[in-house]
Amino acid sequence: MSKSPEEEHPNKAFGWASKDSSGVLSPFKFSRRATGEKDVAFKVLFCGVCHSDLHMIKNEWGNSIFPMVPGHEIVGEVTEVGKKVQKFKVGDKVGVGCMVGSCHSCDSCSNNLENYCPKMILTYGAKYTDGTVTYGGYANTMVAEEHFIVRIPDNMPLDAAAPLLCAGITVYSPLRYYGLDKPGLHVGVVGLGGLGHMAVKFAKGMGAKVTVISTSPNKKKEALENLKADSFLVSKDQDQIQAAAGTLDGIIDTVSANHPLMPLIGLLKTHGKLVLIGVPEKPHEFPAFPLLAGRKMIGGSMIGGLKETQEMIDFAAKNGIKPNIEVIAMDYVNTAMERLLKADVKYRFVIDIGNTLKATS
Amino acid sequence: MSKSPEEEHPNKAFGWASKDSSGVLSPFKFSRRATGEKDVAFKVLFCGVCHSDLHMIKNEWGNSIFPMVPGHEIVGEVTEVGKKVQKFKVGDKVGVGCMVGSCHSCDSCSNNLENYCPKMILTYGAKYTDGTVTYGGYANTMVAEEHFIVRIPDNMPLDAAAPLLCAGITVYSPLRYYGLDKPGLHVGVVGLGGLGHMAVKFAKGMGAKVTVISTSPNKKKEALENLKADSFLVSKDQDQIQAAAGTLDGIIDTVSANHPLMPLIGLLKTHGKLVLIGVPEKPHEFPAFPLLAGRKMIGGSMIGGLKETQEMIDFAAKNGIKPNIEVIAMDYVNTAMERLLKADVKYRFVIDIGNTLKATS
Repeated sequence: MSKSPEEEHPNKAFGWASKDSSGVLSPFKFSRRATGEKDVAFKVLFCGVCHSDLHMIKNEWGNSIFPMVPGHEIVGEVTEVGKKVQKFKVGDKVGVGCMVGSCHSCDSCSNNLENYCPKMILTYGAKYTDGTVTYGGYANTMVAEEHFIVRIPDNMPLDAAAPLLCAGITVYSPLRYYGLDKPGLHVGVVGLGGLGHMAVKFAKGMGAKVTVISTSPNKKKEALENLKADSFLVSKDQDQIQAAAGTLDGIIDTVSANHPLMPLIGLLKTHGKLVLIGVPEKPHEFPAFPLLAGRKMIGGSMIGGLKETQEMIDFAAKNGIKPNIEVIAMDYVNTAMERLLKADVKYRFVIDIGNTLKATS
Repeated sequence: MSKSPEEEHPNKAFGWASKDSSGVLSPFKFSRRATGEKDVAFKVLFCGVCHSDLHMIKNEWGNSIFPMVPGHEIVGEVTEVGKKVQKFKVGDKVGVGCMVGSCHSCDSCSNNLENYCPKMILTYGAKYTDGTVTYGGYANTMVAEEHFIVRIPDNMPLDAAAPLLCAGITVYSPLRYYGLDKPGLHVGVVGLGGLGHMAVKFAKGMGAKVTVISTSPNKKKEALENLKADSFLVSKDQDQIQAAAGTLDGIIDTVSANHPLMPLIGLLKTHGKLVLIGVPEKPHEFPAFPLLAGRKMIGGSMIGGLKETQEMIDFAAKNGIKPNIEVIAMDYVNTAMERLLKADVKYRFVIDIGNTLKATS
């Protein structure tokens, strides 16, 4: 019989977990594995709240394992390193994103694209190589193989660093892969949430002209004044969309609600690229002709590899790119989840784990 | 009042035209413009029969202008050149494909992509810059601006050259643009008609391993033995498709009938590309997740520019790539259209204009 979460590993840990698909989080005792020779262990200081945490704690994708400690935007300070660890030492500021394992031998792994490895292991709610379930960053400690540890640059605030580890890399990677990273290009960003606001910042940081496309006219001021986008389009305003037809080199579409692609394809220039990073429930639909007549493409992208994640956070630090965050206490997390469901956050909740997670007796 | 087709230009011409949307072709007298200083005039020797000719003579796309002389795979021998023509002389073997005009100044034209120019003028059934209607290659003579004339390499038979000017470039261009032209890649070709059989030949010529994907199991022998494809999949056989999942670097999908994309997306490796060159009547559908999880893309492509068309035909000549054709007489064309509708041709009808088009009294 398998041991309890509290007893299966030698190192005591505590955090907040959902015990079932009610989606309510509460204090939870578990354990972390002993720091292996290639492992880095760290005290968690901050953890971002990703929208996928909300899906997972409610088992909305049908693959959740309970009890579940969510959190895959994890930042902290190294407390112990294994004897084969080369890049990190005690006291370093580090982070862990969406992954804690991969096969290290497939084509994707060989090309620093662990995120596309068929054996990629998610940071929480997945089976680790030792058969135990992975627990995320809504917790006091974390441990992971050195390969999956990112260094937080000195001038990047630790709370702001957290959302970069998922939201940041998720928008940065497609901007690079699809060649939307050249100064002077005109890039559209659909949806202005955790992902969208980072897409605006990274695209601007790469030198693009950025147009935000949203269903909500009342996001215009925010997009232009606070996020420094260059222009704004209301996606349901056919006159606006028509007037902007054929103007965009590429679009990062962050929306996970069902929405029509045709207006977006129409906004693209010849050879333009529509990149999907959200997953709506229903299939997308598009007529073939506009893709042929404009040699346009529709592509996807999911997170990013470890090498690129480090590159992304270094680029962010160098260019002063930071997510807009609202720092919250651990015991506010259930309220935060309710607000997240209503998109009532600009743009990412980050839990101050270091100062507000209290040990349960 | 505008002049009749026979009188609007100084040079008498004759060919076969459809007079209305019945789709029946019959002898037709018209005229060609005087050879301008940048024009090349030629005697037509062969003209390929493209499936789009069939759509156009029946007005199935709703934009046909009658009377219509179809044909945009036109090969012949130069009879006259304008005084500013630099690359061609009387006696040269030349061809004209899908286009006879473009703006020469937009981004697409500046990048040798006249096929994506918003002012591109089709070889037949379109308004030319002088306001007259363009007539295609089911005719004794042709005239076009030097820019739109392709040189037929010496060792390429003239009858086989004809289908390269549309079918050839339509498959060659996406293989190049989408990076499916590297030796050792594994390329899928969906549909084995005029376009599909050329895609197999060009992909093989570029060094790819080629898998033909078809709804018809009885095309297997043909694909493997005659076209030298490496493997064959029946698209409706779920076991076969499942067994081949994740094996293709790219797919050229030539099918214009409605068909599901999901099995094709599943056949792609991570970062694989599905390229559509057919236009089904209904919109395509696809779920976003597989595109994200495999960083896959769906793109389109339409014909190709003039520079690339010349490159394509030179590549074909150098590598012994020729379409499989059935040469027919001009007065067989209505029967050929009936057979084309039933896909009863391997794989392209080419009309022997030079020897079989008889002048009408």
